[in-house]
Amino acid sequence: MEKYTEQGIRLSSTCPTFLNSNSTSHTWPFSAVAELIDNAADPGVFAKQIWIDIHVEADHLCMTFTDNGCGMTPNKLHKMLSFGFTDKGGGRKGEQAIGVYGNGFKSGSMRLGRDALIFTKNGGCQSVGMLSQTYLEKIKAQCVIVPIVPFNQQTNILSSFLSKHFMTEDSEVSLAAILEHSIISTQEQIQAHFDSIPSNKGTKILIWNLRRAKDGNPEIDFGTDPTDFRLPEININELKTSLKNRELPNPEQNMHYSLKDYLSILYLRPRIHIILRGKEIPAKLVSQQLTQVEYDVYKPHFTKDKVKLTFGINEKNRENYGIMMYHKNRLIKAYEKVGCQLKTSGQRAGIGVIGIIECDFLKPAHNKQDFEYTKEYRLTLGALGMKLNDYWKEVTERKSRHGEFEAVNKERGNALCKKNAQQSCSGPTWLQCEECLKWRSVPAGHYDVIPENWNCSQNPNPRYRSCSSQEEANNTEDLLTSSYSKNYYKRENYRHKKKKTPKFMHLELKRLNQCFVDLAKSSNENTEPEPLTQQSHQYSQLRQKAWIKTQRRAQRLP
Amino acid sequence: MEKYTEQGIRLSSTCPTFLNSNSTSHTWPFSAVAELIDNAADPGVFAKQIWIDIHVEADHLCMTFTDNGCGMTPNKLHKMLSFGFTDKGGGRKGEQAIGVYGNGFKSGSMRLGRDALIFTKNGGCQSVGMLSQTYLEKIKAQCVIVPIVPFNQQTNILSSFLSKHFMTEDSEVSLAAILEHSIISTQEQIQAHFDSIPSNKGTKILIWNLRRAKDGNPEIDFGTDPTDFRLPEININELKTSLKNRELPNPEQNMHYSLKDYLSILYLRPRIHIILRGKEIPAKLVSQQLTQVEYDVYKPHFTKDKVKLTFGINEKNRENYGIMMYHKNRLIKAYEKVGCQLKTSGQRAGIGVIGIIECDFLKPAHNKQDFEYTKEYRLTLGALGMKLNDYWKEVTERKSRHGEFEAVNKERGNALCKKNAQQSCSGPTWLQCEECLKWRSVPAGHYDVIPENWNCSQNPNPRYRSCSSQEEANNTEDLLTSSYSKNYYKRENYRHKKKKTPKFMHLELKRLNQCFVDLAKSSNENTEPEPLTQQSHQYSQLRQKAWIKTQRRAQRLP
Repeated sequence: MEKYTEQGIRLSSTCPTFLNSNSTSHTWPFSAVAELIDNAADPGVFAKQIWIDIHVEADHLCMTFTDNGCGMTPNKLHKMLSFGFTDKGGGRKGEQAIGVYGNGFKSGSMRLGRDALIFTKNGGCQSVGMLSQTYLEKIKAQCVIVPIVPFNQQTNILSSFLSKHFMTEDSEVSLAAILEHSIISTQEQIQAHFDSIPSNKGTKILIWNLRRAKDGNPEIDFGTDPTDFRLPEININELKTSLKNRELPNPEQNMHYSLKDYLSILYLRPRIHIILRGKEIPAKLVSQQLTQVEYDVYKPHFTKDKVKLTFGINEKNRENYGIMMYHKNRLIKAYEKVGCQLKTSGQRAGIGVIGIIECDFLKPAHNKQDFEYTKEYRLTLGALGMKLNDYWKEVTERKSRHGEFEAVNKERGNALCKKNAQQSCSGPTWLQCEECLKWRSVPAGHYDVIPENWNCSQNPNPRYRSCSSQEEANNTEDLLTSSYSKNYYKRENYRHKKKKTPKFMHLELKRLNQCFVDLAKSSNENTEPEPLTQQSHQYSQLRQKAWIKTQRRAQRLP
Repeated sequence: MEKYTEQGIRLSSTCPTFLNSNSTSHTWPFSAVAELIDNAADPGVFAKQIWIDIHVEADHLCMTFTDNGCGMTPNKLHKMLSFGFTDKGGGRKGEQAIGVYGNGFKSGSMRLGRDALIFTKNGGCQSVGMLSQTYLEKIKAQCVIVPIVPFNQQTNILSSFLSKHFMTEDSEVSLAAILEHSIISTQEQIQAHFDSIPSNKGTKILIWNLRRAKDGNPEIDFGTDPTDFRLPEININELKTSLKNRELPNPEQNMHYSLKDYLSILYLRPRIHIILRGKEIPAKLVSQQLTQVEYDVYKPHFTKDKVKLTFGINEKNRENYGIMMYHKNRLIKAYEKVGCQLKTSGQRAGIGVIGIIECDFLKPAHNKQDFEYTKEYRLTLGALGMKLNDYWKEVTERKSRHGEFEAVNKERGNALCKKNAQQSCSGPTWLQCEECLKWRSVPAGHYDVIPENWNCSQNPNPRYRSCSSQEEANNTEDLLTSSYSKNYYKRENYRHKKKKTPKFMHLELKRLNQCFVDLAKSSNENTEPEPLTQQSHQYSQLRQKAWIKTQRRAQRLP
């Protein structure tokens, strides 16, 4: 084992079985898929598109990942097939790499199958490399060796015969190993794979011997939905063999079982078109799926930067709730419960609330499905919990307030409340340009139906009507303050300060009065004015109610 | 990079930064500590004791792990400092290795600190090895090299000068590297570390440059409790700097914040004495902490074996609930919520219920804190959910049944109910022999206070009164049936079958009648018989009540 030394000291070796060990950090297969997409989307590669597909080659079911990024030199390919090498971090201004560990390809590909070939072309050179557990096992390798063969992209001839630049000693032996031990048996087939990369540059990953469940079926279900990769439904009959049919397990969260659903929210601001089985996955902005959206701000004391926080209600599927935690644009943790959502006693709270935050100040774990459990992470969760509690109180109070006015609203289609509702339910609509992939905002309601194919030239805002203009700054200044006044909290704070404050009641009354004045104004604008007496009567009734409420609240003060 | 080839094909290389990447699968530092304990406890090493400590060496705060296992040869040490080599699997009959990935030391040690030295002696040879990120960074290494120096254990002289068996070319260079780049600067200090291993054989791991939080403090709090390693309390003041003090984050689960608490339940049947900072951690059997313990059986359809399942109520801390999932004796997932515990709507259910299962049929993940998310795992969670629902229904029904009889019970200390209570609250007490570490059962109540130091010779059961006798078979036959009759489920099943079954009512009545007959009998045995009339009156009242209930239930049938 100790035959390799550097500076006279033996190398740490890597056993072929480590390929499997290393991949087990991806407990969930979609987490492995996401790694391979990250690699294509990262600066340095910058693929505009990635195609994910399955096909059968030499009687093997294969999964392919093809991108039109900038491809790799043989040397870079060797780094990709080694452990821990990463030169990410560059890229266009403001665009940070997701990958930091130099492990995504190894852990991701070896999680999905036992063997992988990589075809890559960078304009001048085409290279194929192999990372294969079956091969290493067959030749009884003591360490991980990675056959790599470079070809001249113009002549399709083995580079070693042509150019000193690409020359490596092992090209011929490597080619022989690939042709003997992979599902590719001729040089023409290799060329066909290079040619199937749809542009001059790009990379294609071919994975075979896909992982199977103990029942012999592939762990991913390719059959149920021909446009998706799904985790197989748990057949209740399988449970029945040992258990009688009583109660079904809980409904399953979509993104956990559908790759399409997961990939649609994988990036906070999607930068790459993902085409799964021939159909593009429409990128979703999570915040657009929510109602009652409000913004808040988190300033961790251990960093300089403020971070925007978005809260909203997942009206369509209240079972899925919690914080969506992104890191450098990439979803790390989904539906992380915080604050009142963790309570196990008393009334349930925070159900249905989704929070969205981009935590670049935290460190993601090995598999990018979790953060390191550091003090900073725990502080962040604590703070998010408090912020979510604030939001929940605000929303529940708003609801009960709305209830109070409901009678009046129903009668007159109240403008004030309409305005409130608009404020809370909508911001601008964000659309992504098909060409430059930048996100542009258009005013809410500009489109009745959001167009499927949209590009900068259609932008109603002339400032951003061209792909050459910069991306909007995502309202950084506007949004880095809380979007709501946290009235609940302010009042709570008064209570905490234990002041029997007549000023508080005074303010509360003032606020209510203002509401009624607004209400009155908007009512007066109505075409059919109602008899003033009845109106006044209603107002005075409501005012009285409010007064009583305020009194009661005051009495409850210690 | 491609200078090393095997069979003419280049090696996959390992970048020094991969040491950190690889360690990030341990998001939680205690998970890294557990890896190092696993290594000592596994067959092949078989340490009886492991001492975990901190001390200051050359102005560096160090963590040490010292065991009295069988030590390593230099060759084995090289494997330990390489990736993926594992020859575990042997060991004494019935004892399986926890480690399978050959990665525990690398990921564990590099998670806790940047640098580690390993001192090991196997009776003939003493070796020291170094895995150090600081060193590799300083010499600008392109790959991971691991200085290893073997000494003759009798003469303390570098083995290379003495014996061909241990000779390696790199011993002298390696020694120079260790003395220059570690916190050990003389050969005498190395010897002192060998000597600090308390027996003839054993291994000591010394970790320095311990990880720190952004505030500069070590990530582990060594100060608050001098007998524990703790995660630092989140100081609410730190949150206050950005947030006003409103509501504290949720109470934190003990095992997550106290190494002592975590290690006390790390093994289902503890096999190794863990001495943390000079104080032995008493091993806990989780099931002994529970009340209303019942057993159930799970037979996955994808394996041959039946698995025992234990349910109980965590009366002391109802906030901590869910399934404790072990794998080959080692805790993998704690407090995993299943079945009714996952419900987000309706009445809360399953709060406080702990389940315990050993899932050897599943595959643990990279960091041994999770299982691979396979179909088998999902089926298991589904089944566990159903079983937990059964248990919860039984317990809640039992509670309401007890409520019904409470009036009678209070008056007469009913024998029937006492028997029930005994059945549900206690099994034998399990004690571990100090000498042979085997677990022995003694009848419940044999000891009023469970003795701290106990060995086989004190066993009331003569069959197991010697360390040489085998461990009890943990009641395999007895316990591989459900310990309770799941009456609730049986009745439910009748409903499911949609039979308007008079037989059902008949059975129900028969059961109730039997109860009353038993009750009557036990009452008659009382020294002070009560007037029969009153008794009969009570019975007839209860009977009537039961009849009405049964009628109602029957009417609810479709």
